[in-house]
Amino acid sequence: MYSFDSDYLEGCVPEILDALASTNLEQTPGYGMDPYCREAADLIRNACSAPGAEVFFLEGGTQTNATVIASILKPYQGALCASTAHIAVHETGAIEHGGHKVLALPCGADGKINSQQVRKAVLDHNHDVHCVQPGMVYISQPTEVGAVYSVKELSELSDACRECGLPLYVDGARLGYALASPLCDVSLEDLAALTDVFYIGGTKQGALFGEAVVFGNTSLAEDFRYCIKQNGGMMAKGRLLGLQFKTLFTGNLYVEVARGAVQKALQIRDAFLAAGYEMLSESPTNQQFVILPNDVVASLRRNFSFEDWIRIDEGHTAVRFCTSWATPQQAVDELKSAIPALQNLS
Amino acid sequence: MYSFDSDYLEGCVPEILDALASTNLEQTPGYGMDPYCREAADLIRNACSAPGAEVFFLEGGTQTNATVIASILKPYQGALCASTAHIAVHETGAIEHGGHKVLALPCGADGKINSQQVRKAVLDHNHDVHCVQPGMVYISQPTEVGAVYSVKELSELSDACRECGLPLYVDGARLGYALASPLCDVSLEDLAALTDVFYIGGTKQGALFGEAVVFGNTSLAEDFRYCIKQNGGMMAKGRLLGLQFKTLFTGNLYVEVARGAVQKALQIRDAFLAAGYEMLSESPTNQQFVILPNDVVASLRRNFSFEDWIRIDEGHTAVRFCTSWATPQQAVDELKSAIPALQNLS
Amino acid sequence: MYSFDSDYLEGCVPEILDALASTNLEQTPGYGMDPYCREAADLIRNACSAPGAEVFFLEGGTQTNATVIASILKPYQGALCASTAHIAVHETGAIEHGGHKVLALPCGADGKINSQQVRKAVLDHNHDVHCVQPGMVYISQPTEVGAVYSVKELSELSDACRECGLPLYVDGARLGYALASPLCDVSLEDLAALTDVFYIGGTKQGALFGEAVVFGNTSLAEDFRYCIKQNGGMMAKGRLLGLQFKTLFTGNLYVEVARGAVQKALQIRDAFLAAGYEMLSESPTNQQFVILPNDVVASLRRNFSFEDWIRIDEGHTAVRFCTSWATPQQAVDELKSAIPALQNLS
Amino acid sequence: MYSFDSDYLEGCVPEILDALASTNLEQTPGYGMDPYCREAADLIRNACSAPGAEVFFLEGGTQTNATVIASILKPYQGALCASTAHIAVHETGAIEHGGHKVLALPCGADGKINSQQVRKAVLDHNHDVHCVQPGMVYISQPTEVGAVYSVKELSELSDACRECGLPLYVDGARLGYALASPLCDVSLEDLAALTDVFYIGGTKQGALFGEAVVFGNTSLAEDFRYCIKQNGGMMAKGRLLGLQFKTLFTGNLYVEVARGAVQKALQIRDAFLAAGYEMLSESPTNQQFVILPNDVVASLRRNFSFEDWIRIDEGHTAVRFCTSWATPQQAVDELKSAIPALQNLS
Repeated sequence: MYSFDSDYLEGCVPEILDALASTNLEQTPGYGMDPYCREAADLIRNACSAPGAEVFFLEGGTQTNATVIASILKPYQGALCASTAHIAVHETGAIEHGGHKVLALPCGADGKINSQQVRKAVLDHNHDVHCVQPGMVYISQPTEVGAVYSVKELSELSDACRECGLPLYVDGARLGYALASPLCDVSLEDLAALTDVFYIGGTKQGALFGEAVVFGNTSLAEDFRYCIKQNGGMMAKGRLLGLQFKTLFTGNLYVEVARGAVQKALQIRDAFLAAGYEMLSESPTNQQFVILPNDVVASLRRNFSFEDWIRIDEGHTAVRFCTSWATPQQAVDELKSAIPALQNLS
Repeated sequence: MYSFDSDYLEGCVPEILDALASTNLEQTPGYGMDPYCREAADLIRNACSAPGAEVFFLEGGTQTNATVIASILKPYQGALCASTAHIAVHETGAIEHGGHKVLALPCGADGKINSQQVRKAVLDHNHDVHCVQPGMVYISQPTEVGAVYSVKELSELSDACRECGLPLYVDGARLGYALASPLCDVSLEDLAALTDVFYIGGTKQGALFGEAVVFGNTSLAEDFRYCIKQNGGMMAKGRLLGLQFKTLFTGNLYVEVARGAVQKALQIRDAFLAAGYEMLSESPTNQQFVILPNDVVASLRRNFSFEDWIRIDEGHTAVRFCTSWATPQQAVDELKSAIPALQNLS
Repeated sequence: MYSFDSDYLEGCVPEILDALASTNLEQTPGYGMDPYCREAADLIRNACSAPGAEVFFLEGGTQTNATVIASILKPYQGALCASTAHIAVHETGAIEHGGHKVLALPCGADGKINSQQVRKAVLDHNHDVHCVQPGMVYISQPTEVGAVYSVKELSELSDACRECGLPLYVDGARLGYALASPLCDVSLEDLAALTDVFYIGGTKQGALFGEAVVFGNTSLAEDFRYCIKQNGGMMAKGRLLGLQFKTLFTGNLYVEVARGAVQKALQIRDAFLAAGYEMLSESPTNQQFVILPNDVVASLRRNFSFEDWIRIDEGHTAVRFCTSWATPQQAVDELKSAIPALQNLS
Repeated sequence: MYSFDSDYLEGCVPEILDALASTNLEQTPGYGMDPYCREAADLIRNACSAPGAEVFFLEGGTQTNATVIASILKPYQGALCASTAHIAVHETGAIEHGGHKVLALPCGADGKINSQQVRKAVLDHNHDVHCVQPGMVYISQPTEVGAVYSVKELSELSDACRECGLPLYVDGARLGYALASPLCDVSLEDLAALTDVFYIGGTKQGALFGEAVVFGNTSLAEDFRYCIKQNGGMMAKGRLLGLQFKTLFTGNLYVEVARGAVQKALQIRDAFLAAGYEMLSESPTNQQFVILPNDVVASLRRNFSFEDWIRIDEGHTAVRFCTSWATPQQAVDELKSAIPALQNLS
């Protein structure tokens, strides 16, 4: 039975396995000071047109968020974000464990926040020492429900952040799927220029694991390696991270593997729409959230695995179909064939 | 130039590369709930003769220490350990970041603490609410300078801990090198029986990365997965950890790869002793600490890389030679040949 | 100009000044081990009909909340509370500083949460290790907007908490004003019986400062003095806390001083209602929240000081009038006379 | 029986009781924004000849240390201090609770550290990201065993700190007893000029409670009120702190009350020396540490209370005699009369 449960069910793209095998017996320094990390960082700086950026490699998303946020905020500051943000709901309090409040803002079905909300939060706070001070802004590109910020939206957020003195941080756990989407106009260059720091997710886009943190604002990167170590994210064999990102950023592989996944996800979306169903949110990326009658859910589950997302009402559930670099076209085709036309009970 | 700098300079044993490649496209659930993690846990329970133990997999040593310690201690408690303990000196305050004081006890050149020190620390504390309460004991097997606790020493520590109500935790970052040493009588069964929790290091013994935490005292393991997630150590592709430990614990591979390393380390030790040098500490494992005149250090550095450990006096330095599963016999032979006889200036 | 801004604008009831003066040169042990603390604890146990309860004294509310919550929760747990709870919005992240997420639940204008919400939060969490685990419930009596829980509501919350295994903690920063209200049926005995721990506020009810923490569930109180010290709340001259609470709990003074304040607050409420205004919430305690046209606000401000609470719309603001043990009847009378009848613009 | 156990056994100087009584019914704003705090801050700035300094008031020493240190350090930094420092041994891990390691340096019987140690610690750290970075220096004046830094020593420390980029913080829990000592040449002006921040202890020198934090380096004081609130130290009735420090800094009262205590302590010291005993340390302040045969200890305990400090050997104990503003000359005279001449057993 094929699983559309997530984008981290398989291992990695074959190029990474090859790179691991071919360099396995080389001796390299530990803790990220090896040549592969240096090469990978150069490739990423180049892909971002940001020759002065600082690049670091960590192992996973929650670890990266906790480390970046702990490195930026003062003790009495919190991170503004959407109420559905990963740091707000799915990190078991990793941010609070580091001493910081997550300042969740209301958001729509797309999981986005906007520049007005940021400005209002700062105005509302108004230097009240009894309240947590907004100290940075966290967004996800794509959001946790697959939506993407446009260049316009990101620019407005960036402007608001700079005016308010708040570093802007973008969680790119699934960034490749945004970069590869025909419906997303934000590039790596834009991210490097418009944010203070963002990360390029590897785990969900072809790597075994690994996230590359890019500080466009290098004043925030000073001593970041201490933070990585303190937060338990400094790999002894750091070369594993360097090798993987070197591989993914050689010849545009990072975006290429994501592009196929996005195309397949959009095929799935189109098939559900054509069959008469509604989507929970507008997602141009590799996650598609469909509202289905429960009997359709049960019927599709006989041949496919996928996640319940939220309960809509007594008879309907929103479910998630997730594609990845590893999703075979055949599985997509079979899923499309299995979608029944929506029954109108009128 | 061959490097004896550390035991994490290369990748992994070929069996692990093979396992990664052959399972790469399998779809498995994330976050450690996959069949490989289950199989690896079973193999480890079996190797420990501890069928009831709880086993978890994390990525690295500092992360594991921080997570285990945070999961055990109450806020006002600290971990008793040697003043040279990894948690005391080489984790950038990861334990303190989690809110806990490291209660360092004086120790000798071997990096060990003993049961008398533990009992005295508890007596001295004497329920004084103005001081951090000893809440657990941390030791390393082997210690940070390669020495090993004997069954007798470990049993005495275990008894003291149980009488004082302190969980005993063993950091086994290099555990295989102790298990494989002809001069160490402590087995995995002993560790499971005499400690509350210990970890089996993979990173430095043939894995790409990964540490297996074994809770003999399962009452401490409840909700440990929350702690892993909160501390940023829950891999999306947890199968990578399961696969590696399944491989290492199939057919005694874990000890076998360490055995070769230890034999080579003892050859190096014997060669230095035969040439008239003194060792900084008695190490029966893969790390050897030799006190050398600075000109000998300089001379050996022309062909080999190795770490300065501590300055002894104006003319002497203690240096570390570290072997691993990957160390070729030829490199050892060349090093042995390069050792000059000690010049007596009398 | 008389200020109704808050209930902590003046010093303390004269009985406390007298007690401080008459004992000033006595020598007593420090850190809460003095006879006055013991006597005060006995008086409080007696007032609560809880002879087995453990009683501790701290200096202020935020400190007390942070200390109690840090002492109860495991690292990956959070405190369920109303979205308007003091710990959620007005403690500058003190709870998060201690490592814990505040799990805010939606609440109405009265600032209360109910047993259904608690049960639902536990069901929704459903042992998901990626989310913060509900570890306790925090409510305020009266709430931050002056409303009170009834015995029925508190009993239902208590039942839900016990079934879910969640300690129930009541913040009683203004508890006296609830105990003294004719419209509140919850007594100290009820609190001791239905909660695991609660605190009796002194700062806002006649003391110079000080809060008395009462653990009906004494299993939570073990080692609480370590927590007080670690959180910076252990007074060297702890006798100051004991003396004040001994004074307040001698002859029912604590409730008596609050009773006058409540009566005056209800006079103010009745005067505004009689003049045609609406209250923001139903408060039977010493804080009254009135919705006023902005010109009425401006007019009243010529002779009285009071706090803006929230903006209602372009033309209206909810403001707070707060009475205390020190509020003179004359100030209340003058305020009542100054209230203009509501102008109906129809 | 008179107690020389500590300097916080009694209440406060009568002037403070008078001030509390005479202002008791005044209405003042809360949280330290009242006129008394402003006046007290002005008086302190004046006493320090530091018109630009920022002054804040907190309740107690541990709270002050935790708040100041949390406000200064980055997450991966620690505070260098003596191994006998209050923050190292007597605050139940309050500093670690805030996430920071206490970097204890060896010190002699006087509890002091010196500029060489600071420079060496920074050199030894050498930007090693695996170790906690020294981020500030903490000393106590007088030290925990009553010794005082001279202007020369303090200047050297100050120079070392400035060269190393480490803020210098002085814990003045008993500062008045140093200022009042004929053997101490360090003034408030010196402290303001040579440190970045220090605090003036009130609790142990005539106040009921309270410590005044003085930031000569005002760049560190920005947003300090957020830190006070987050650490549970912001008193609702902040005026209590302002009033006490206004009283103590009117007409040099702060030093005057300490001067009497120091004179009495030196009388006690001289009497023990005259009788043939040795002091544990050279203390020119209000704490005297005498090494006594155990039978002399027992004999003196029949009429006086005092603390055991440390065990010297089987037959001897170092004990502490502490005087305060409240110590009557008669008690000192009686103690002096009770000291037996040292018996030489030869």
